[in-house]
Amino acid sequence: MKHLIVTLLFISLCPLSVFAGNGHELWLRYVGVGKAEVSVNKKGETLKISKTELLNFWQGGKVKLQVKRSNAHPDSYTITGNTTSGIVITSPSEQGVLYGTYHLLRLQSTNSVDGELNITEAPSYDLRILNHWDNLDRTVERGYAGHSIWMWDELPEKISPRYHEYARANASIGINATVLNNVNATPQVLSHSMLEKVKVIADELRPYHVKVFLSINFSSPAELGKLPTSDPLNKQVAEWWQKKADEIYKLIPDFGGFLVKANSEGLPGPQDFGRTHADGANMLADALKPHGGIVMWRAFVYNPSKEDRAKQAYNEFMPLDGKFRDNVIIQVKNGPIDFQPREPFNPLFGGMQKTAVMPELQITQEYLGFSNHLVFLASMWHEFLTSDTYCSGEGSTVAKTTDGSLFPHSVGSAIAGVANIGEDENWTGHHFAQANWYSFGRLAWDATLTPDEIADEWIRQTFGNSEELVKPVKKLMLESYETLVSYMMPLGLHHIFAWNHHYGPEPWTAIEGARPDWLPSYYHNADSVGLGFDRTETGSDAVVQYFSPLKEIFNNISTCPEKFILWFHHVNWTYKMKNGRTMWNELCYQYDSGVKDMRELQKIWDSCESYVDAERFRQVQSLLKIQMRDAVWWKDACLLYFQTFSKMPIPYDIERPIHELDDLKKIKLDLKHHN
Amino acid sequence: MKHLIVTLLFISLCPLSVFAGNGHELWLRYVGVGKAEVSVNKKGETLKISKTELLNFWQGGKVKLQVKRSNAHPDSYTITGNTTSGIVITSPSEQGVLYGTYHLLRLQSTNSVDGELNITEAPSYDLRILNHWDNLDRTVERGYAGHSIWMWDELPEKISPRYHEYARANASIGINATVLNNVNATPQVLSHSMLEKVKVIADELRPYHVKVFLSINFSSPAELGKLPTSDPLNKQVAEWWQKKADEIYKLIPDFGGFLVKANSEGLPGPQDFGRTHADGANMLADALKPHGGIVMWRAFVYNPSKEDRAKQAYNEFMPLDGKFRDNVIIQVKNGPIDFQPREPFNPLFGGMQKTAVMPELQITQEYLGFSNHLVFLASMWHEFLTSDTYCSGEGSTVAKTTDGSLFPHSVGSAIAGVANIGEDENWTGHHFAQANWYSFGRLAWDATLTPDEIADEWIRQTFGNSEELVKPVKKLMLESYETLVSYMMPLGLHHIFAWNHHYGPEPWTAIEGARPDWLPSYYHNADSVGLGFDRTETGSDAVVQYFSPLKEIFNNISTCPEKFILWFHHVNWTYKMKNGRTMWNELCYQYDSGVKDMRELQKIWDSCESYVDAERFRQVQSLLKIQMRDAVWWKDACLLYFQTFSKMPIPYDIERPIHELDDLKKIKLDLKHHN
Repeated sequence: MKHLIVTLLFISLCPLSVFAGNGHELWLRYVGVGKAEVSVNKKGETLKISKTELLNFWQGGKVKLQVKRSNAHPDSYTITGNTTSGIVITSPSEQGVLYGTYHLLRLQSTNSVDGELNITEAPSYDLRILNHWDNLDRTVERGYAGHSIWMWDELPEKISPRYHEYARANASIGINATVLNNVNATPQVLSHSMLEKVKVIADELRPYHVKVFLSINFSSPAELGKLPTSDPLNKQVAEWWQKKADEIYKLIPDFGGFLVKANSEGLPGPQDFGRTHADGANMLADALKPHGGIVMWRAFVYNPSKEDRAKQAYNEFMPLDGKFRDNVIIQVKNGPIDFQPREPFNPLFGGMQKTAVMPELQITQEYLGFSNHLVFLASMWHEFLTSDTYCSGEGSTVAKTTDGSLFPHSVGSAIAGVANIGEDENWTGHHFAQANWYSFGRLAWDATLTPDEIADEWIRQTFGNSEELVKPVKKLMLESYETLVSYMMPLGLHHIFAWNHHYGPEPWTAIEGARPDWLPSYYHNADSVGLGFDRTETGSDAVVQYFSPLKEIFNNISTCPEKFILWFHHVNWTYKMKNGRTMWNELCYQYDSGVKDMRELQKIWDSCESYVDAERFRQVQSLLKIQMRDAVWWKDACLLYFQTFSKMPIPYDIERPIHELDDLKKIKLDLKHHN
Repeated sequence: MKHLIVTLLFISLCPLSVFAGNGHELWLRYVGVGKAEVSVNKKGETLKISKTELLNFWQGGKVKLQVKRSNAHPDSYTITGNTTSGIVITSPSEQGVLYGTYHLLRLQSTNSVDGELNITEAPSYDLRILNHWDNLDRTVERGYAGHSIWMWDELPEKISPRYHEYARANASIGINATVLNNVNATPQVLSHSMLEKVKVIADELRPYHVKVFLSINFSSPAELGKLPTSDPLNKQVAEWWQKKADEIYKLIPDFGGFLVKANSEGLPGPQDFGRTHADGANMLADALKPHGGIVMWRAFVYNPSKEDRAKQAYNEFMPLDGKFRDNVIIQVKNGPIDFQPREPFNPLFGGMQKTAVMPELQITQEYLGFSNHLVFLASMWHEFLTSDTYCSGEGSTVAKTTDGSLFPHSVGSAIAGVANIGEDENWTGHHFAQANWYSFGRLAWDATLTPDEIADEWIRQTFGNSEELVKPVKKLMLESYETLVSYMMPLGLHHIFAWNHHYGPEPWTAIEGARPDWLPSYYHNADSVGLGFDRTETGSDAVVQYFSPLKEIFNNISTCPEKFILWFHHVNWTYKMKNGRTMWNELCYQYDSGVKDMRELQKIWDSCESYVDAERFRQVQSLLKIQMRDAVWWKDACLLYFQTFSKMPIPYDIERPIHELDDLKKIKLDLKHHN
């Protein structure tokens, strides 16, 4: 009997068994017990983690870990040798060794340890950072996986095991920084008592080389410091920030810096005092500079003016190019609007050349079905990163404009992802949303990875190496993005979401007194003639913000890629598409293909039933049902609504609507920002 | 201006325009103004109607209407001649001429007046009767087209125009009788004040030769007459009924007689006094006999006993065969259970030979999606009427056992249909439910008509003769019945409906203390072994009630038609069907084909958009959406529920469920018996 109890205890302590089906262990499902012999050439917290991971999980014999000074990127590493004679991981830094360690374990998990290894890796971006939109009350703006993992109430006394798990997961994919709180920041985050809590988290993350940043509220000097103003050119204000910086760095010597959303969607900023974004950013940059901190200043700004919202960030920031301190990076969302299912890249990429620019991607699916819809975002981000800006001739991809290849800046390169992490057992709500966290890390490390490569390694680590599983699940993931775009917003449609919560379709929304640029009609412009936003030179002329030949390509309806045709053009319902269909018919077929493809994705997942543990299988199956119903909802809502303008029949060979437009208009979901 | 008003008035008085889209005129949409010259050889109310109809609507010149004594069936008629020399309609009776008149107008509406006419028609059944399940408070049991058209409150003073319209519609398809009130009858229907109202309706219907009957409550002598008993062998009771009959016939000299539901589902009957059904029926028959009235005695009886419900009517009535008066007809529902989507015929057909038996069909769709689902019931009734009972060797169809060909009885032959009529503008709720009223009349007149023939003439009269419309709509109608069976209850499944309202699926229903024979599990018997009701000789032995070779065919799982396999057998989940699939897989594919076919039916209707007036098009389109959603609901509910027994996967190549079983179990519809 005693023996039995011991066995049970052992099992319950073993994370592999405990988390078999709930997904808590993410992609770190190392199977089997380590049979390793590990040597290190140095002492250090981070190196110790590498050693422990290998001792626990590496089954390939001897490994030598060595930190060796070199001119290579500090995060870079090499892996050489083989499982017979032993393997060597070398890096200029402890964290580089750690990244190499996880690389080696990934090779093991994906059955890819084969013969002589000769791997050299260096990151695409220096700073690979998560942005948490977590509020101090633990709600998460646009969070769909439960409340925040940061337990402010319990801190600094109690330390959740999640902090360490979080750091490990990030380190395993090369993420090296995090902004703990929402860009819609409250001044209170900089109070001393809060900073003491932040310090504890920073201490927890440090061994994994994950640096802590904070979002700040530009009115902090007035609101927290009780100064009469927060004017960035006011000396007292600048001093307040300098003192605050000193206070922070005393607690957290390797504190990363500030992320700032200013003069955007009602938040305070330098323009409140007649100053520019540069004035604001530079004042903060000066305060952080002595400590080695940086400012990430967001370019997500727009006003309810007559100017096309898509043009405003560019118009605002281009004149300031070159006017920022060298420890400022301008953080720009991938598209000119706001994390829509599909957008062309923001023209600030390639446009701003004298100032460092970093992409902001959204991992959390604010506009992509929350944690209900399965969509593999590596596809979207790959499309974005490989988009050609033509800023320095052909091949000037967005990646190259931001990773330092085309425009090196002393502050280094950076890329941010708005986290989809919450306190749900599986971290991200949907098991497949873990793949988006994973993909962000992997692309930030290596922007040249393809969605196929990323999906392949994620599936093998997360679900196993059975080809019967890997092949269909990869197909499911790789097709998921186009499928979602098709059933939500094909052909360049954008922002026709339900008011406020951005979940379902509401192309019809008309709220008395609402800002026009917050209403779907602002974006779709449906009328008796056609559909879409005229951004050509005879329209809002947003195309002028792009380099030639892109501007001409977008400007001309016959050369504009059809996936963006309704983004750049107000297209006649009867306009003939490249396949010969009218625009209206093509719109119908696009929505229908989204629905049809979703049905196929459902089939693919169900067919994997015997290769996946029951718990994860059922949860994903259940969510795919919701997604399937939502796909039909989207299709019916958009087609039936736009039909009231096109006055043309939905082609009779496609699956018919099953809803009434009037019923759909009555749907009002009560969705909070956090689950 | 005055001219305009006159024109508008004219239009608003013209029924063709007024009712263009609401369907109120049913299949009597005579287009154009009559150009006829009509002569009659006799005076008479009914003949006058024929003449007026032709003068109003016949565009083919001279018509001679003549009543001529003959030995032919009184309702029979001939149509001879051509549109050049003139047409002659001859019948032994005025109503025969009327039927011939509507026949001629039907030929005109269906573009079938062609060359020399030489038509002779006589009805399959003498009595072609509607059963209204209308209560005196104007609710309608199992009615889905609004309240009752019988305005009892207003009668006898006020006469609704509906009575005359109703009579005309019935006459146009040969229906010659109606039972005004619910078989679950209240004694009050026989009160004198009620009879005075009934008389008014009878007077309204008489010119169209539609005879009035009433459903009676067997306890009327006690409850209405205040007698100490309603024992049929009690002399006072018999006298009470005789007096009541006298009273009725004084008001309504051509009163048809009584329809009786006795000792069934809680209603009183002769068995309450230790008497038989024959004792009860004969006593009533004796009271009606002097006046020429008849008794239609329902065989729909079953008790919560150990005996298979499907066997009980047969067991109860077969011993009484030959013991009924010659003015009694036993009214038997088509199947042994209760108007299920598909049942084998009730073995009393062919079984009872010495007593007249009449089929009771249900036009109202109690178990077939109410007035929401489009299902063309001619298909079901054709299958039923042509079923071979083998009672007098091969070819002894149900029709022949009841229409007098095999077993002639002096009372004549009869067939009843439970009406789907209510006060909705279009009479039947669903525009296509009119086709079921129409089909009942047409099949009662000519049991050899095919669903194709009936659909063809109904569509042409109701929607027009355009081939672009007739062809697809006919396909839609002809496929609708199999489609409904597939998504509701394929393979012989039956009675797995929601408790009480019988609309949606509830195969799981388990209500504490409920009669087992009112619960779905009584019928489906799902368990770990398989599914279905074992009615073989080693089971309930219901098969024994059928004639050879049918009894052996049904008894043997390998010869039993698969459409009835779960009706007669408890079939293993892994039983190999004729196509090689397991029973479980076949069940899945059947449900899936129901859903797939519904999607096709939706497409067909939508493709007819330009051939149908907008009002009817949209209503049908809207209902098809509901039906489509219901089909998926049925499929998901039944497959997910039965899967908890089969423990086998739903074949991965079929459309996946989009619902969760637990969610479906929570659905509780608040459906009244009337709309």
